[in-house]
Amino acid sequence: MTYSKFNFEIIKQSKSYNARLGIIHTPHGAVKTPAIIFCGTKANVKGVTIDHLKQEKTQIILSNTYHLLLQPGPEIIQKAGGLHKFTGWDGPMFTDSGGYQVFSLGYGGVAAEIKGVKLSHGKKSLLRITEEGALFRSYIDGKKVLLTPELSIQTQIALGADIIVCLDEYTPYNTDKMLVSNSMVRNKRWALRCRNELERSGNNTQGLINVVQGGVYEDLRLESASFANENDFDGLAIGGSLGKTVDEMYSIVKMTKGMLNNNKYVHLLGIGGIKDIFTCFKYGIDTFDCVSPTRIARHGIALVKVKENKIKNNNQINITSAPFTEDFNPISEECDCYTCKNFTKAYIHHLFKAKETLGGQLLSFHNIRFLNHMMENIRNAIENDNIDEVEKDYCN
Amino acid sequence: MTYSKFNFEIIKQSKSYNARLGIIHTPHGAVKTPAIIFCGTKANVKGVTIDHLKQEKTQIILSNTYHLLLQPGPEIIQKAGGLHKFTGWDGPMFTDSGGYQVFSLGYGGVAAEIKGVKLSHGKKSLLRITEEGALFRSYIDGKKVLLTPELSIQTQIALGADIIVCLDEYTPYNTDKMLVSNSMVRNKRWALRCRNELERSGNNTQGLINVVQGGVYEDLRLESASFANENDFDGLAIGGSLGKTVDEMYSIVKMTKGMLNNNKYVHLLGIGGIKDIFTCFKYGIDTFDCVSPTRIARHGIALVKVKENKIKNNNQINITSAPFTEDFNPISEECDCYTCKNFTKAYIHHLFKAKETLGGQLLSFHNIRFLNHMMENIRNAIENDNIDEVEKDYCN
Repeated sequence: MTYSKFNFEIIKQSKSYNARLGIIHTPHGAVKTPAIIFCGTKANVKGVTIDHLKQEKTQIILSNTYHLLLQPGPEIIQKAGGLHKFTGWDGPMFTDSGGYQVFSLGYGGVAAEIKGVKLSHGKKSLLRITEEGALFRSYIDGKKVLLTPELSIQTQIALGADIIVCLDEYTPYNTDKMLVSNSMVRNKRWALRCRNELERSGNNTQGLINVVQGGVYEDLRLESASFANENDFDGLAIGGSLGKTVDEMYSIVKMTKGMLNNNKYVHLLGIGGIKDIFTCFKYGIDTFDCVSPTRIARHGIALVKVKENKIKNNNQINITSAPFTEDFNPISEECDCYTCKNFTKAYIHHLFKAKETLGGQLLSFHNIRFLNHMMENIRNAIENDNIDEVEKDYCN
Repeated sequence: MTYSKFNFEIIKQSKSYNARLGIIHTPHGAVKTPAIIFCGTKANVKGVTIDHLKQEKTQIILSNTYHLLLQPGPEIIQKAGGLHKFTGWDGPMFTDSGGYQVFSLGYGGVAAEIKGVKLSHGKKSLLRITEEGALFRSYIDGKKVLLTPELSIQTQIALGADIIVCLDEYTPYNTDKMLVSNSMVRNKRWALRCRNELERSGNNTQGLINVVQGGVYEDLRLESASFANENDFDGLAIGGSLGKTVDEMYSIVKMTKGMLNNNKYVHLLGIGGIKDIFTCFKYGIDTFDCVSPTRIARHGIALVKVKENKIKNNNQINITSAPFTEDFNPISEECDCYTCKNFTKAYIHHLFKAKETLGGQLLSFHNIRFLNHMMENIRNAIENDNIDEVEKDYCN
């Protein structure tokens, strides 16, 4: 069945956890959840053609409004007939609001925060945040751009993704509670402006997602979640600072998810490690996104089940390491990706040693298929109520 | 019909030119000639997966013995079951002898010579040429390697390509005639050592190609050609210095081809521009190879018919130039490649501007298909005796 607009349906609620099986219906097809959304930041998944994305059973991809706003610009993509026609990807698509990049380039992102990475602030691109929006400097040509809720929505309408996101400010971990609160309250006003802008456009095919903020503060998360529940959004996302450690992140995700209307689609922004997915789908998170599967692939890292790895409790093998020089087996005997069906670890090792980009392409195919397959297994585990058993293959 | 060893068959001789239609039979399938051989230097065509090579109707690819001898080494590829299994390419394959890279890194290559490019000799890798072979320094680890005719053939047997080449020395344009003559005469001895080494191995599936040398000197070319004709080689190649200008190159190719046994398969080494192909297939050249189709693709150049180009008498468009920003047409309306069927010039332009490697991949697919299609048209033109008419589409 094809839906002419965004719609989320819960198929089954897990008995043992808050996990659920669902379907996101969109004008470009359905997404079975829990699902992972692969990042095609600048209107392409780096090094991966659409036919290979499909061959590896990708359901949905994401492009970044921030990057496309600056290059090539929404006018070009609108003239091309939207992002689907421009990129050739005819399946479900997600765009973010552009806010995350604007603010993380000013503050540093969630992952950097959790890893304790400090950003160099030598080139500050975020100039000013006002009620109107965020003023920043383009990394392409240095021009000043005022990203307002209206511009974010107009841009996302021009791009034409199936799931779009309200502009919100992201406050970093160390922000004073009063400032986090002010920001969260302004985000509510921005979200209403986004909804109004989408309504004003007459466009009713795109699903609009509101981001729940409030940092590490339970009362602020609750206020943000209540706003999200009470207003008419097609789905919700958990964003903002999720604390300083992985355990804190999990506890804030769990707490926040618990505050949300259980019928709504919920996305976890920018998180998609294997352990993260296994922890958070059990809280009821429906979709995840992360640049890491293809980024680590380009650096020689292939994802594997823990039982397939000689390194204990580890999901990654580094194909550039010496033992793979003469390893004439595929990355995984179980995997049905293009790479595992056709090539050995020794060949991919050689491509990396010879500095051939094809190596990163082949590992990208594998990592995409690995995660899509993992999500299939997770959905089957919800269906069959054997989540713990399936989890053992992937995490210890 | 499958042949268990190399065999060349001439199907039709053109009435108007020395051009001919042929078939190279190999244990990995047939190659319809005239054909172009695409370069997969380090055991891969840069950025192009095997399925895309096939989709663009590639008949045969080439790998370079020089590069593979140094990395990963023939032992690894032999253990993998040969280059076909290692790379996943199950069609006809060609390897060169390794000599061209050894000598061109010392002297500068044919193309550089014709273009008048002078090489920096700061890092000389060729150390010494003796009767035994050529001693050079590996660009990988600095180790000294003695490339003998026997090592070249042993390496090519380990790689297992369908068409392999005798080791020969390549002398540059400005070499004194006596030195060219000495080199050419030594090449004859090296060629016999190559043939003996192949016979000694008991391998009789690979076709062995002898390279005709002699530089720009008619009498030396004739001596080299006579040797090639009189000895038992499966095919011949025209190599060495072809002069200082394109016209001189054409005249030496024509002259040398005229000296060769007309029943033998003839390859033109390292030459594969569109004008070059249209000139030289008419002399009876059967196959061409050139790195340029995918190299220029990675720099934003797409090949087109002259009538499709706004620039007069030109086969190339630069996708990065400004007019393509809003060009929502494929590179060519006539082309059936993956890229032209799915993407616009504006999209590929965007990928290059955004520094996404996918742009070079998409142009590589197009350039490969463009040339394979051009060779189909050339073969049809020989069949239908309308060579001049077909040539007008490609060259003016």
